[in-house]
Amino acid sequence: MAFPRPKPTTVETLAMERANPPFNVRKLSIKMHGSEKALVLKEKFMAEIARHPAFKLSDIHDLSKDELRERTMEKFASMVYFVTNESLEVFTLRMQLIGIADPSFWTRFGVAYGLFLGALRSGATPNQLSYWIDRGVLGLNGVIGCFAMTELAHGSNVAGLETSATFDRETDEFIIHTPHLGATKWWIGGAASTATHAAVFAQMIVDGKKYGVKTFVTQLRDTKTFQLLPGVTIGDIGKKMGRDGIDNGYIQFTYVRVPRAHMLMKHTQVSRDGVVTEPPLAQLTYGALLGGRTSMVTDSSNSAKKALTIAVRYAAVRRQFAIGKNQLETQILDYPIHQRRLMPLLAQAIAIGFTGLKLTKMYEDMTQSLDTMDPSDPNLNEILDKLKETHATSAGLKAFCTWACLDTIDKCRQSCGGHGYSAYSNFPTMYADFAVQCTWEGDNTILSLQAGRSLVGAWGAAIKGKRLVSGVAYLNDRSILTAKSDSSLTLSDIKRAWNCVAANVIKKAAEEYVSYLKAGKSKEVAMEMCSQSRFIAAKVHTVGYIFTMFKEAVEEMEESAETEVLRTVAQLYGLWQIEEQQGYFLKYGYFKAEQMDKVQTSVDGLCAEVRAIAVPLVDAFALSDHILNSPLGKYDGSVYESYFSQVQAANPLPKEHPYFTRLIKPLLERQNTEMEDPEQAMGLDDELKEIEAERNEAAKGKEGKVRKEDY
Amino acid sequence: MAFPRPKPTTVETLAMERANPPFNVRKLSIKMHGSEKALVLKEKFMAEIARHPAFKLSDIHDLSKDELRERTMEKFASMVYFVTNESLEVFTLRMQLIGIADPSFWTRFGVAYGLFLGALRSGATPNQLSYWIDRGVLGLNGVIGCFAMTELAHGSNVAGLETSATFDRETDEFIIHTPHLGATKWWIGGAASTATHAAVFAQMIVDGKKYGVKTFVTQLRDTKTFQLLPGVTIGDIGKKMGRDGIDNGYIQFTYVRVPRAHMLMKHTQVSRDGVVTEPPLAQLTYGALLGGRTSMVTDSSNSAKKALTIAVRYAAVRRQFAIGKNQLETQILDYPIHQRRLMPLLAQAIAIGFTGLKLTKMYEDMTQSLDTMDPSDPNLNEILDKLKETHATSAGLKAFCTWACLDTIDKCRQSCGGHGYSAYSNFPTMYADFAVQCTWEGDNTILSLQAGRSLVGAWGAAIKGKRLVSGVAYLNDRSILTAKSDSSLTLSDIKRAWNCVAANVIKKAAEEYVSYLKAGKSKEVAMEMCSQSRFIAAKVHTVGYIFTMFKEAVEEMEESAETEVLRTVAQLYGLWQIEEQQGYFLKYGYFKAEQMDKVQTSVDGLCAEVRAIAVPLVDAFALSDHILNSPLGKYDGSVYESYFSQVQAANPLPKEHPYFTRLIKPLLERQNTEMEDPEQAMGLDDELKEIEAERNEAAKGKEGKVRKEDY
Repeated sequence: MAFPRPKPTTVETLAMERANPPFNVRKLSIKMHGSEKALVLKEKFMAEIARHPAFKLSDIHDLSKDELRERTMEKFASMVYFVTNESLEVFTLRMQLIGIADPSFWTRFGVAYGLFLGALRSGATPNQLSYWIDRGVLGLNGVIGCFAMTELAHGSNVAGLETSATFDRETDEFIIHTPHLGATKWWIGGAASTATHAAVFAQMIVDGKKYGVKTFVTQLRDTKTFQLLPGVTIGDIGKKMGRDGIDNGYIQFTYVRVPRAHMLMKHTQVSRDGVVTEPPLAQLTYGALLGGRTSMVTDSSNSAKKALTIAVRYAAVRRQFAIGKNQLETQILDYPIHQRRLMPLLAQAIAIGFTGLKLTKMYEDMTQSLDTMDPSDPNLNEILDKLKETHATSAGLKAFCTWACLDTIDKCRQSCGGHGYSAYSNFPTMYADFAVQCTWEGDNTILSLQAGRSLVGAWGAAIKGKRLVSGVAYLNDRSILTAKSDSSLTLSDIKRAWNCVAANVIKKAAEEYVSYLKAGKSKEVAMEMCSQSRFIAAKVHTVGYIFTMFKEAVEEMEESAETEVLRTVAQLYGLWQIEEQQGYFLKYGYFKAEQMDKVQTSVDGLCAEVRAIAVPLVDAFALSDHILNSPLGKYDGSVYESYFSQVQAANPLPKEHPYFTRLIKPLLERQNTEMEDPEQAMGLDDELKEIEAERNEAAKGKEGKVRKEDY
Repeated sequence: MAFPRPKPTTVETLAMERANPPFNVRKLSIKMHGSEKALVLKEKFMAEIARHPAFKLSDIHDLSKDELRERTMEKFASMVYFVTNESLEVFTLRMQLIGIADPSFWTRFGVAYGLFLGALRSGATPNQLSYWIDRGVLGLNGVIGCFAMTELAHGSNVAGLETSATFDRETDEFIIHTPHLGATKWWIGGAASTATHAAVFAQMIVDGKKYGVKTFVTQLRDTKTFQLLPGVTIGDIGKKMGRDGIDNGYIQFTYVRVPRAHMLMKHTQVSRDGVVTEPPLAQLTYGALLGGRTSMVTDSSNSAKKALTIAVRYAAVRRQFAIGKNQLETQILDYPIHQRRLMPLLAQAIAIGFTGLKLTKMYEDMTQSLDTMDPSDPNLNEILDKLKETHATSAGLKAFCTWACLDTIDKCRQSCGGHGYSAYSNFPTMYADFAVQCTWEGDNTILSLQAGRSLVGAWGAAIKGKRLVSGVAYLNDRSILTAKSDSSLTLSDIKRAWNCVAANVIKKAAEEYVSYLKAGKSKEVAMEMCSQSRFIAAKVHTVGYIFTMFKEAVEEMEESAETEVLRTVAQLYGLWQIEEQQGYFLKYGYFKAEQMDKVQTSVDGLCAEVRAIAVPLVDAFALSDHILNSPLGKYDGSVYESYFSQVQAANPLPKEHPYFTRLIKPLLERQNTEMEDPEQAMGLDDELKEIEAERNEAAKGKEGKVRKEDY
């Protein structure tokens, strides 16, 4: 080998990895970002925040919770300009980038801008909305909102919330009240120290009758002095696993009065006389939920790509062990097992990315259809079916994509060995920040079961002969249940494999459900009893769906070197997931045992193929060093130098040792405190002997000698 | 239902869970702790630390890194008494308990007591050892050690370390030197601010010849002033994912001289004249590694039990959603899916616990055999074979048990919903602290491959007709490869299932290895190329091994209600893992598809069975509220009250808002900064028109009017 030195530097090694890639990195990057515009905007946002002092990232691991929160508000102030001046499309892309750069701040801003404002948008009448817009909600001046839904004893079960809002006809007000500890509003982001108003979810009671949970805009603090208003008790709920930059708090209301007009009345109205008008149909809230889930699928891909960029670059420059004497140590990325650790995850992150793009498009189209939908539209039912199906699929996607991303972050951390455990690798913060995504906006397990419930329903519809919408249309073709592989392992073969197996596991869940019904169980109980099978149905269907989205995206592209790369990646994703869940493929006979061995061999080969282009591939994720915030993932490969200097800068040694004199010196200078034998120390045995001798003497005396006490 | 109130309190609910358990909790607890003595000692240790101010745990989530470290040394000071006064057996049990209560402190103490002292014990000659004992190493006075092995650029590959120790014959000294940045000692626990000496691993060079890595006791700081000695550069490596209570540091040596006598010379000797005597055989270091791994298996079980105690108690008192109107909300532990989330993990933690007990016993017996072993012992080869096999098995156990525990902690966190994300649930700290166990003492993936390598070797030996030792003896019976289930799903059936499948995956790895050899690859390359199959072999063998250990433990017990419980738990563990890895069981034909459905149904049923006794079962883990340090897992069930009061106590609101005036007030009071249209603001268009008009005028002037510049 013709290296300039016996051992190339890490910088040289990474440069070699980038030499002559078999595809154009920028072209691939555009494909993965959906458009050139999206990529260019992202690069602009990255450049802006890299230079903005509030978005400094290198020191965040050493900031206290209070420092992080203060910085959050500095960022908040820097963003309000954009929220008023950028188009929604551009601002959404900006927030997407912020979501990977700084999840804590993203959350605080999202609470005010997404949740609070979103509650107004979806719940207020036009006049109410324009009132709040006049008060400044859009520009986040005058009003800074928070979203007071969950309570200490109720999270998933929103209908079970216990905060009450009782109508007082006399004063035309609602009285918001927390009846007991369990009804304390809990986890409320922004409540602890930065919100003026809250969208409070409470059980509405009019004339003693309960009408279920409605939303009431309730002021928490005086906007001039920031003092809490009477009856409002707020506390800080303190340290969390991650996202300490957002000030989550608890709120207890003690008979707090709000004007009737502060109840959001788009759906349910309460008149001056206390007449309640309920909407004819349950609210169509699918659309709102879809938005959150869509963004979480995209965020899962982006966060996984961030972790993988770090892990892949590090694995390319890290050398450990030589094969053969006097050989250069091997780049750890060259070990087949290391390729097995990272390449499938790389494929998965890319697959989820394309799924996110498709889902975003579907979501936008659907929002448009819903906005312009006429109740007399002949396609109404079809649109609603499609919406319902996408809603269910997105529940499964939210669950399995966030799980996949969390798993990827930790696997990437482990793949960097000890250095992955350093805070400065950024994996610990990424993991801790991301972990909540598996819980909020619906616990992943519960969402999976919702997806599974819908699949059970789809199966029932299919066997009744109903034509199903695209995502589950494969259930219409009953022959898929007994399909067999043609051994080609092409994208089509893989797709058929997933459809076959998904149909089988859905069928199994549906049949279990029906058998419980036949045994006399209620629908609710039967659904609970088949929940493990429902869960499996959701898991298999969702992975198949991700693969299908990816495959379709690739097939829509013109042939090019970049398309070829993505086809290889798609194949790796599909086959690796078959390996991971091989039990189902063997159980339902799509693959035979020998074919499964071929799958394993193919995955080995595909891992090696993707490894060859791994560094330019992660370059195409287009994440700046500032966003990565990890010396292990430095673009130029100066891993050890960057790591060392960051560690040094963050940890200056104190001039004086803080506890040497108090704690260490006494340790070093002490005599061993071996437990003394107290009997020996007291001379107890000698003493006892003396006493005995004296007694004997005395006894003798009794006999012969006159003693004092005898007198 | 005859509840005293319409809705029982959480305390009442937990009491009902404990009413009339079908077994004796204490008897079961004794079985799980190995002996009554072990349980009683644990209870004593728990009572001691619960009252010791240095072991306060409730505030740790809000302490800074520096505060945590200072407290570590307070604990350190409190422990030296016991280390000098307790028997090794008792002190080992004490450290085991400390390991689950306080992993940071456990690490700091373990570095001084386990690693540094361990290095002396295994590497020093008798005279050297007694010299260091006189200096105070045993009582940790005079000398506080650290263990300087890993470097910035070398972790797994110890033989590749680059710190040098060059013999200077003239002065009879070694010169310890860090040649470049990558050779900086890194991660050294205790180095940053609390150690006086280090066991430094360095490449020994005598007369220009390299002899490989040896150990040199090197003083770092003056014991009176704690100033660094000349040539020693130390830095703090700062924040980590967890275990911030230990002060990890980096060390660079610049030509630091140590007396020749400070090289540990039990194995390799260097004489006054620089004559090097190397040991006839490579050092037998198996035993030392085994100790660490054994304790990590036990710690995995204990840490998982801690997480599960919290999650199970919380799930028993948490109610969410009612099935049917006017029903009490359901305890989430009653949902089949929640049982699926927790019960198998409970079974796994118990299985690993019994494996740890058996492994500890094997380790103790083996240590004794090795200590008393005579080289002429006719059983020598057998003992060494057994040692080698246990060594390989323990590598796999370390990997898969620590992975299982880390996974359990996060699954328990998720099972507690949002509250699991609060620092005060203790899951975040537990996860962050435990995570390093998958990396240190050998990266789990690399250890799995070592286990796999040994299994490939065992297969080779088996087909040559060699009788294998117990752990892999099933490979001797080739008929196991084609065994079939008798559909009983008893412990024997399950054991045969694991043996069958393990034998098949080991055979596959071995055959791949041989095929690469036949294709002309070197042994090393062939081993790397079959690494995925080796990994699978290790995974399947290890789970089968854990199951077998558990089964044997149960079968050694007298029949009793407690034994019956453990038999059920063992069955759940074995069958659940079959489900998890069902692909192999189908692929190798041990189970047919329908039998696999029966496995699923059995697991459902076993989950429900174990759920019925889940609360008394976790009570038998005997972990005090102090150790659990989580209001969600409070023994008495006062979950919400305890949580609320801990959050309140930890987060008093500041008297004055720290940044309202600087950051929030300007936001609230600002005018919207919508971007002005600068063209309009400047009146640009009007101005341009004027200029144009003037020019036109001028042009006209050129024609008719005399202008200034014409003169």
